[in-house]
Amino acid sequence: MEFKELLTKRYATKLFQPRAVPEETMQELLEMVRLAPSGLNVQPWRLKVVVDAQTKAKLSPATHDEAQINSCSHLLVFCADTDWAALTQRLGRVMKERTVPDMIWAKVMGIAAEMAQEPEQELRAWIIGQAYIAATYGLLGAQALGLDCCPMTHFEPAEYSRILGLPENIVPVVLLPVGYAADDPRPKWRYPLGDLLI
Amino acid sequence: MEFKELLTKRYATKLFQPRAVPEETMQELLEMVRLAPSGLNVQPWRLKVVVDAQTKAKLSPATHDEAQINSCSHLLVFCADTDWAALTQRLGRVMKERTVPDMIWAKVMGIAAEMAQEPEQELRAWIIGQAYIAATYGLLGAQALGLDCCPMTHFEPAEYSRILGLPENIVPVVLLPVGYAADDPRPKWRYPLGDLLI
Repeated sequence: MEFKELLTKRYATKLFQPRAVPEETMQELLEMVRLAPSGLNVQPWRLKVVVDAQTKAKLSPATHDEAQINSCSHLLVFCADTDWAALTQRLGRVMKERTVPDMIWAKVMGIAAEMAQEPEQELRAWIIGQAYIAATYGLLGAQALGLDCCPMTHFEPAEYSRILGLPENIVPVVLLPVGYAADDPRPKWRYPLGDLLI
Repeated sequence: MEFKELLTKRYATKLFQPRAVPEETMQELLEMVRLAPSGLNVQPWRLKVVVDAQTKAKLSPATHDEAQINSCSHLLVFCADTDWAALTQRLGRVMKERTVPDMIWAKVMGIAAEMAQEPEQELRAWIIGQAYIAATYGLLGAQALGLDCCPMTHFEPAEYSRILGLPENIVPVVLLPVGYAADDPRPKWRYPLGDLLI
């Protein structure tokens, strides 16, 4: 499928068929998500994949009981990892292991240290932004693999954290229920290009 | 190009050839960006396209004089639009024009009103997240069109706003210099899948 066609056909699926996505297809999707870029290549995200019906049923009320949660095959929960110190330590260590030139290592670590000095909310918003890149890879990847999905952000992150037992630094940001659509797309509309450009 | 191949080949270009991207290709790219999804379909973003060498030269110091800014063909500045009241008014008006069923209209407007009550920094982070979706459409769209690009977030947004004369509610979030690469990709590395999953 051409990329433009993929963008055009994708839509926010509201209901899924009771049909599981094969595990090998899910692995392909996860591999695509893994390739997402991020600032400094710090990869400040984690992904929780929920398959079992019982957990989905628990999460449903924290998602305004939208039908996607219980009906999807796999629920991908894209999380931001807000532990900047741990993230930059890991990055520095792996760059050393990969024998990155010292000059580049020092530049990247310098920027990371600068970012640690930013107001906490600014850094948090930046990290959340990176998680959105991964989620966008997920939603386009799902479409490319012939799956349907629905990116969702209207949910209770604290409830998700509690039910999924997530550590404090792992913040659910975008949900991506994935499966095979049981509904039909409504016409896609966007503001004209003139409204986008400034 | 298969989608997986597109993800694999894409890399952060550090230097571009002195060769302009044809305007019709840029139009195709902008049309792809326009298709990006967003929560409530509120499209809380604006895009500034910088072509002239003089403006790029002014922006260069606010981007740590990275070579991408002056060498690229088109510099796309993805901005978040943080004026929630104006965004939701526009959305409500256009949904009415599109004769969206009253029930859906009321639901969307209700969520928008709820979001207006969130802590300002939470809503701001959410809006920035949506701008990252558009930027990700831009970076994959560029790749799909045979262009090269480099997403960048390490720059001075206040300086960008000043130089580009952006209104206060329009916040530069991601830069995407676009053109034809004059460098070679370094090997792509990501943490293993086991580190991604939680």
